[in-house]
Amino acid sequence: MLGLPLIACAVHRLAVVSLVASVDIAAAAARLAGRVVRTPLLFSERLSEALGLVVLLKAENLQYTGSFKARGAQNALLARSERGQLPAGVATFSAGNHAAAAAFAGRRLGLPVVVCMPPGAVEVKVAAVERYGGEVVLTDDLVGTCQALAAERGYTLLHPFDDLDVIAGAGTVGAELAADAGTVDLVLVPVGGGGLISGVAAAVKQASPATRVIGIEPATANAVTHGRRHGALVPLPTPPRSLADGLTAPYVGRHNLDHIDKYVDAVIEVPEHAIERAWWELLDASKLLVEPSAAVGLAALREHAIEVDPGARVALVMSGGNVAPTTLGRLGP
Amino acid sequence: MLGLPLIACAVHRLAVVSLVASVDIAAAAARLAGRVVRTPLLFSERLSEALGLVVLLKAENLQYTGSFKARGAQNALLARSERGQLPAGVATFSAGNHAAAAAFAGRRLGLPVVVCMPPGAVEVKVAAVERYGGEVVLTDDLVGTCQALAAERGYTLLHPFDDLDVIAGAGTVGAELAADAGTVDLVLVPVGGGGLISGVAAAVKQASPATRVIGIEPATANAVTHGRRHGALVPLPTPPRSLADGLTAPYVGRHNLDHIDKYVDAVIEVPEHAIERAWWELLDASKLLVEPSAAVGLAALREHAIEVDPGARVALVMSGGNVAPTTLGRLGP
Repeated sequence: MLGLPLIACAVHRLAVVSLVASVDIAAAAARLAGRVVRTPLLFSERLSEALGLVVLLKAENLQYTGSFKARGAQNALLARSERGQLPAGVATFSAGNHAAAAAFAGRRLGLPVVVCMPPGAVEVKVAAVERYGGEVVLTDDLVGTCQALAAERGYTLLHPFDDLDVIAGAGTVGAELAADAGTVDLVLVPVGGGGLISGVAAAVKQASPATRVIGIEPATANAVTHGRRHGALVPLPTPPRSLADGLTAPYVGRHNLDHIDKYVDAVIEVPEHAIERAWWELLDASKLLVEPSAAVGLAALREHAIEVDPGARVALVMSGGNVAPTTLGRLGP
Repeated sequence: MLGLPLIACAVHRLAVVSLVASVDIAAAAARLAGRVVRTPLLFSERLSEALGLVVLLKAENLQYTGSFKARGAQNALLARSERGQLPAGVATFSAGNHAAAAAFAGRRLGLPVVVCMPPGAVEVKVAAVERYGGEVVLTDDLVGTCQALAAERGYTLLHPFDDLDVIAGAGTVGAELAADAGTVDLVLVPVGGGGLISGVAAAVKQASPATRVIGIEPATANAVTHGRRHGALVPLPTPPRSLADGLTAPYVGRHNLDHIDKYVDAVIEVPEHAIERAWWELLDASKLLVEPSAAVGLAALREHAIEVDPGARVALVMSGGNVAPTTLGRLGP
């Protein structure tokens, strides 16, 4: 039993580690100029006062498609096109925000997109894909069906987070944040499969090595914590569930774990009750419609799970704003 | 019976009409610099596509205290101070956003503020006043109690909307909008007692006379339509009720009706069902947490209550973002 983690570890260490560099993120930013919203970094007076910090919110809920995913999906298609890998179409899989973002990116580039989604996918998420002209295939076997469709149609298979172009696209969130924030002591990033934090941490740490970057995952959907023990791509033993539905990836990606190991100071877990409470506080204080996933950073601060000096400048990445109306009904102080 | 409206009309015409000029709004902007959030004017891709227009959202929900009222309240206290009318304190009345804004303004200037609120005021609105250090007096007789308190304590009585300094403060919303929007064909403004639209219309029409400014009020809370028939300050026959609770002023102010008569192209009414539907669409499309009052403009467009050319540039003023959690529970597509 003891040998297994060591073997997994050795394999991990021997593998070639590919990391996104500042130049890759700068190239992504150039590609995405005019194709993404340069989202504002908003000072929150209410949260700053409540926490005794300077709280800045990177409002990716205001991004096209309602989440940061519009960056990675578009960068991936554009970068592949530049490399002469322009596909006939794109096959991808997601229960959430990547689904709409891939459809959006495909429509912008005139490429057909098919998105494999689980049969239990939230109706508004399915509707979002269709609004952007994407084809939805409901299937229990997301990856298998997606691979089969890609092979059959000659489409490119796009992983929603374990992809260096997707990571570089997400990195533009961090690059904008670093440019707009001035000095920032701490950046808190919601963590699911690791796509967002990989890019943000790479951007922030290369721009400002002294800034701490901490990832937050729900205790009930802790793919990164699990992956650090058991290896990337090893799924959680039971399907993750959380109010923060955007963070319920079943495993951390390989490239993502590499970036987290290299650039992230810590990944910590927060309980559900803290997420629920922080979500209402965040909405009420910020007046941004953000999804529960965006509230994990505030939840961690409220739980005193992170040591932070009074008056420190803390940026919270608001990952998205796609909330089902039934979920909104659960809100309250 | 027939004679009464004519007499009221004659009195109205004979009265001295005081209007806020561009210089008053510029003076307000100078006073408020650094004291208000210069809120963004956000392009909404989703609404633009859905409506076949260029839709711009003036995000006053991101204003301090969560509504545009922070502008008028601060301008009123600062302007009075400049004129040597610095009060020992402020007495005001409101069931809604002006209450928190007055408390906020008072705290910033080190002045005590007492706010008369109705016994049925929403708990979060009362809590907001107290958060900013304001004193709350619950009373059925808002104006009478407020007048008595002002007299007793030597406080200045501040009307929440029928006040030229308050109107000039609200005008800075219009001035920023006109500066940021470039050419704009139509501005839609939520209407309660008329404070916001008085200022916005004065600013926009003086900057750009060709721009249409239209006010929207709930059909069940139509103080301006009522006031145009029966005179300013004449209360609605029954207490107004609407999902758009920020617009339930019982009458239109005198200064407000003067500004509306001079600067506003039309004030139209929208039914409750249209407000409810537009509210969810607005939240889902904009990812801003706005209160139902902010949705009346979209409701009017959705009801085809306003003629507008395809592709026209239309700005919607998001008046505020203070939503009670129980109200959020009513949301849905």
